[in-house]
Amino acid sequence: MVSPNLALNEYVAQRQAAGDDIVHMGFGEARLPVFGPLADQLIKGATRNAYGPVAGCEEARAAVAGYFTRRGLPTQPGQIVLAPGSKPLLMALNHVLPGDVVLPRPCWNSYAPQAKLANKDVFPVAIPAECGGVPDPAALRGMIHAARALGRAPRTVVLTLPDNPTGTIASPERVREICRLAEEEDLFLVSDEIYRDLVHPPGTELVSPAEVVPDRTVVTTGLSKSLAVGGWRIGAARFPDSAVGERLRADVTSVASDLWSTLAGPMQAVAAYAFSEPPEIRQQLAACARLHGVVAHAVYEIMISVGAQCRRPTGGFYVYPDFEPLRDRLAGHGVSCSASLSRELLLQSGIAVLPGHHLGDDDQALRFKAATSMLYGESAHEQQMALDANDPLRLPHVDAALTRIDEGLTKLCR
Amino acid sequence: MVSPNLALNEYVAQRQAAGDDIVHMGFGEARLPVFGPLADQLIKGATRNAYGPVAGCEEARAAVAGYFTRRGLPTQPGQIVLAPGSKPLLMALNHVLPGDVVLPRPCWNSYAPQAKLANKDVFPVAIPAECGGVPDPAALRGMIHAARALGRAPRTVVLTLPDNPTGTIASPERVREICRLAEEEDLFLVSDEIYRDLVHPPGTELVSPAEVVPDRTVVTTGLSKSLAVGGWRIGAARFPDSAVGERLRADVTSVASDLWSTLAGPMQAVAAYAFSEPPEIRQQLAACARLHGVVAHAVYEIMISVGAQCRRPTGGFYVYPDFEPLRDRLAGHGVSCSASLSRELLLQSGIAVLPGHHLGDDDQALRFKAATSMLYGESAHEQQMALDANDPLRLPHVDAALTRIDEGLTKLCR
Repeated sequence: MVSPNLALNEYVAQRQAAGDDIVHMGFGEARLPVFGPLADQLIKGATRNAYGPVAGCEEARAAVAGYFTRRGLPTQPGQIVLAPGSKPLLMALNHVLPGDVVLPRPCWNSYAPQAKLANKDVFPVAIPAECGGVPDPAALRGMIHAARALGRAPRTVVLTLPDNPTGTIASPERVREICRLAEEEDLFLVSDEIYRDLVHPPGTELVSPAEVVPDRTVVTTGLSKSLAVGGWRIGAARFPDSAVGERLRADVTSVASDLWSTLAGPMQAVAAYAFSEPPEIRQQLAACARLHGVVAHAVYEIMISVGAQCRRPTGGFYVYPDFEPLRDRLAGHGVSCSASLSRELLLQSGIAVLPGHHLGDDDQALRFKAATSMLYGESAHEQQMALDANDPLRLPHVDAALTRIDEGLTKLCR
Repeated sequence: MVSPNLALNEYVAQRQAAGDDIVHMGFGEARLPVFGPLADQLIKGATRNAYGPVAGCEEARAAVAGYFTRRGLPTQPGQIVLAPGSKPLLMALNHVLPGDVVLPRPCWNSYAPQAKLANKDVFPVAIPAECGGVPDPAALRGMIHAARALGRAPRTVVLTLPDNPTGTIASPERVREICRLAEEEDLFLVSDEIYRDLVHPPGTELVSPAEVVPDRTVVTTGLSKSLAVGGWRIGAARFPDSAVGERLRADVTSVASDLWSTLAGPMQAVAAYAFSEPPEIRQQLAACARLHGVVAHAVYEIMISVGAQCRRPTGGFYVYPDFEPLRDRLAGHGVSCSASLSRELLLQSGIAVLPGHHLGDDDQALRFKAATSMLYGESAHEQQMALDANDPLRLPHVDAALTRIDEGLTKLCR
């Protein structure tokens, strides 16, 4: 089966092409136009048709190293590998890291299939009440011990900071707890920080496990979310500055050479520019983060107002509500699980969301992920207006989408 | 370990940067400038920052379908999946095809590591005397039966038409023999036809197994070799028009959605244009094929003149000589195997080639792969001159490279 998020995206595109008016929050795309200076770099990079180094050219690796260094993680270019998106890097890590894989429950829908393709078992662990992206530490410890008692060897934990799907950021204390556990239980951490530059409100503290247990952490990132170029496929990974890190980097580079050769040359030119973060890029990142924060918060308010529980979003562009308090009322609409909840929303109100069970969550729970970054408008013009607006919520097309969501959910929860 | 060809390429680039004058034939890159109209399409595609369908947009898939249809393989867009190079497609096929993998010996150096990453065993079978890219049919049958007797299940055979590394094209009769065997032994064929448009002399017949056993054959292709945009990473696969083919296509698309999402949007714009083959593209393909043919043949003549055996190259841009007739003479230079042969060539004469054991060949054999497409010059200007020349062999920089090869080999084989 195709990744459920990509499959839903294609289904909605077909329905929309057929004339259906759908409020599409079922796909994690930062739906904004290409930022002009990025396109300029792509054009400048058009002459780069040679393969070049597998890990990426020196200039691009140096730019990514600078990006991490500015975020409290001193980094040399030799610690960096670029790739066509962070997905193939996460897959390569599955091939080279030891043991089985622990995932937060719920989590991004590609982690588990990737682990299975690499012939690994997946151990899901529930997230804490206040945030996603990390397993609950006590539950994690319990699971590790239980798995070991059964002769299994979970050795890698994937974290998502900020989190997809909950739109929250694990607190520094939570991250440190997981890091302590990683030391005690000899675990390796893969920290997916692709939403890192989309923290809202500004100033929200984010501690990477690479700051706490540097020798045990690989960090992945990319431009897909922060700069809205998912369709350009630009990702990078940062490896520890140690003998272990160097071996991992060499192993991932080896897998890369057999799986994808290298990031396309013109995209390396884009990466070299964007990760060096000149003033206009910093400004664009801030504008995107602000827009995502405002709209995610508005959708969060709707979820709370209809009676759902929801963690307040603090990063990225998702909300992950739980309609458990409304179970009895929803039963009157034939809704009793994750699948029927999202189906009813789509059929009755034309609202597309990704049901929680596709993210590894309990299929009996009444949860879904809504990508609020899809509400900025259909055209590049509308999307740019949303990015430029002082108050994007007052734009008629954004307001209309929020009203549709409010009405659709109110109808369902009555 | 990084793919030996990519590793050697990086090593040579470092030596050249340090001032060494190396004739580099150790890397399979069509070293030519970007064809202008391709760059124009990349630039036009710069606004395509959305993810889009996993398999590629309708327009790009239709173009690839047309490309195959014009080559005697009627194809619908629904049979096509695009990707960032054919490498990830070949990897995805490893994940979804049943059983273990049979490879011609020697063959391209990424087939075996990919199979192993997918947890499959590799069964190498010697190529016939007259061509590479296919296993010798009798040896293939013997191996299949022997493997079965031992409880193993080789089910997929990878073919390379035209071949990398031998630069030859299996005759239609050879291909049909393999296809008959595939029917009789219930084997699946992966036909890597990435060099298909680089047949020389023009008119040389190439039969794809997809013409003979359509339900058992997936064909892969790409623009890296034919149009010299390896660094842009554009590949495609064609699946059978049958229930089995449709299931394979769906399975590969599923793996794709978790491994690489989709080919970058701007590259899809390039693919839609190039695979539709307007007149200027056909002309460029013909010019490239001619240049590759002339230079490969010149290097072949040198190999023969110094006393090596060598299959006459008829496609792609490689020669794969065998220095067995010179074993005694080479022993005087301390050369007794594939590794020492290529090392001596590099150290004594500054000629870089890829030793045969990196391609799965016997490490005691005196064979290497020479990529003759690397001899067109260092600068884009020199390369363009080679492409435009009536007789590229008369260009001083091409002539100088050929003289270096001639002298280096003559010295070694004296």
